[in-house]
Amino acid sequence: MDRLKACLDAIAAPDQNLSLAANERLDQLTKPVGSLGRLEELARTIVEITGKPIPAVHNPAIFTLAADHGVVGEGVSAYPQVVTAQMVENFLRGGAAVNVLARQAGARVIVADFGVASPLPPHPLLVVKKIGNGTRNLTREAAMTREQAVTAIESGMELVEHELPSGLDLIGTGEMGIGNTTASSAITAVVTRRPVVEVTGRGTGIDGETWRHKVRVINQAIERHQPDSNDALDILMKVGGFEIGGLVGVIIAGAANRVPVILDGFISGAAALLATTLSPHARHYLIAGHQSAEPGHRAVLRHLRLRPYLELDMRLGEGTGAALAIGLCRAAVSIYNEMATFKSAGVSSRSSEQ
Amino acid sequence: MDRLKACLDAIAAPDQNLSLAANERLDQLTKPVGSLGRLEELARTIVEITGKPIPAVHNPAIFTLAADHGVVGEGVSAYPQVVTAQMVENFLRGGAAVNVLARQAGARVIVADFGVASPLPPHPLLVVKKIGNGTRNLTREAAMTREQAVTAIESGMELVEHELPSGLDLIGTGEMGIGNTTASSAITAVVTRRPVVEVTGRGTGIDGETWRHKVRVINQAIERHQPDSNDALDILMKVGGFEIGGLVGVIIAGAANRVPVILDGFISGAAALLATTLSPHARHYLIAGHQSAEPGHRAVLRHLRLRPYLELDMRLGEGTGAALAIGLCRAAVSIYNEMATFKSAGVSSRSSEQ
Repeated sequence: MDRLKACLDAIAAPDQNLSLAANERLDQLTKPVGSLGRLEELARTIVEITGKPIPAVHNPAIFTLAADHGVVGEGVSAYPQVVTAQMVENFLRGGAAVNVLARQAGARVIVADFGVASPLPPHPLLVVKKIGNGTRNLTREAAMTREQAVTAIESGMELVEHELPSGLDLIGTGEMGIGNTTASSAITAVVTRRPVVEVTGRGTGIDGETWRHKVRVINQAIERHQPDSNDALDILMKVGGFEIGGLVGVIIAGAANRVPVILDGFISGAAALLATTLSPHARHYLIAGHQSAEPGHRAVLRHLRLRPYLELDMRLGEGTGAALAIGLCRAAVSIYNEMATFKSAGVSSRSSEQ
Repeated sequence: MDRLKACLDAIAAPDQNLSLAANERLDQLTKPVGSLGRLEELARTIVEITGKPIPAVHNPAIFTLAADHGVVGEGVSAYPQVVTAQMVENFLRGGAAVNVLARQAGARVIVADFGVASPLPPHPLLVVKKIGNGTRNLTREAAMTREQAVTAIESGMELVEHELPSGLDLIGTGEMGIGNTTASSAITAVVTRRPVVEVTGRGTGIDGETWRHKVRVINQAIERHQPDSNDALDILMKVGGFEIGGLVGVIIAGAANRVPVILDGFISGAAALLATTLSPHARHYLIAGHQSAEPGHRAVLRHLRLRPYLELDMRLGEGTGAALAIGLCRAAVSIYNEMATFKSAGVSSRSSEQ
């Protein structure tokens, strides 16, 4: 708990001077002012977050955290629970979508077990931060203890802290956990105070009847537990998940160390809602990688006042949306660092004559 | 004219069987069906266009064509005409936005002079296809002769044909030409039959008064010349531009040779309107890289029935939007070729039990 508190205390408010300096640089480059639109905004954001006059993306990593959810016992998912473990093995072999897109983006994938129910054989690439063998069924009891919630967050912080000495300079969030859209919808409904029915989607692809059941299950859980909207630990322990707690830790550790954090989709967004409940300043260190097709994700980004950079109707998670956005961050940073200025290139600036 | 006709005749209708085969492959990959959204659509499109069971992006190139426009004499642009030549020199030195983004995307930039007014010193990287020293002022006379229009298109075809033997497998369109949004708005108004005021924007950043003047200038030109909406050569010669004609050639040569063509922004879109007027099948070989901030671009993409992959408020041209979309094409192709299947990875597929 002390480590969590210290991390939150280290998250600073953004420095407006950095933003002004970044704008000044961008406006000297050989292009009409503002004509690269959101790519310029992204470059400015990265300068603001890192405080570096020459920002870099040399060592990006996607943190893909896996855990299981007791709520799958209620029949809210299209896939059996064992798929969580099977997909972790797929990640470790490099065959999943996030591996392919991360390779393409020149990023590593850090795979961590935060509470997969099925046994996973040891693997040199698997980081084990197991908080339990899946959460408890949140419709009947709290998903985890308050102590487990703190441990999950602190374990997520550790993942980032472990990578800082080797130069981690861009974080992508990712996750795998059959049932985790149910937990994320519950978190989103509590934090944004929107109706469950509005923030609940079809996850991996459930039918209409299962979807109505999923909405009922989430409503029951919220009614039973009455999570406190202002207390992120209360929400996480009652209706969250171990990997979601871990992602809260990844986010706040990124923010505390001024490393930009690219949010993936809906589950990452739910973690960001909790992270910004713990520290409102954390919002300034976030980049919304993409707009997921899950309906709750729109509510998340509106609440965070973040505009997504990509909208490709993706709804896979794992960190796939974050991986694609790493490419945009690289592009933005290259524009900022490598383009010629009007002066260096001898290009005339605008004229009122012609 | 014979070469143009032969190229148009070579553009084939798409093969629906390729689309079915691509879907079958995509649905075997370890992800819920359709969960990678438009990335899957992009992979399918590339398979349809190329006809290759294992599509590749090994040798992408952006064709950045430059030319000047006599209409700048009417005071429709925020920058002086000499900037076209200055920016060509910037492209050749590698300092412009398209150079930076192409490097990032692993693509070459092929810079071609289709009719820059100011003299350009010879340069090993500059392809010279000069049709004239800028077009004539389209408010007073036809921008070019019909013969020049054909030559511009055939010269664009030559650019692509020159690169095919070395394995060109993805084309991005790009351009530079002070005044070319004026020509593009005129083309768009004629082909889409929308009012000029709806499809005319602020280009590199003109003020309200200059914008109203620009709208008047375009309306006058269309009234004077009455271009035939169904005759692309008539439109190109009366209100087009040399680089726009060149891009028509790049597009139809890509289509004829089954190389996917990523459209950049508004000017590339105007060229695509002419290309699909010449051959409606050409549409199937196009990928809308991004949605530009120029208002006419929306009308272009609606007319072409293409949905853009990126929407980043960019309005620079040069091929910058196409360069970013090359990264998405690489990602889509990697997903298609490299992901594990449910069978190969031993991952359970969906179950109705849980």
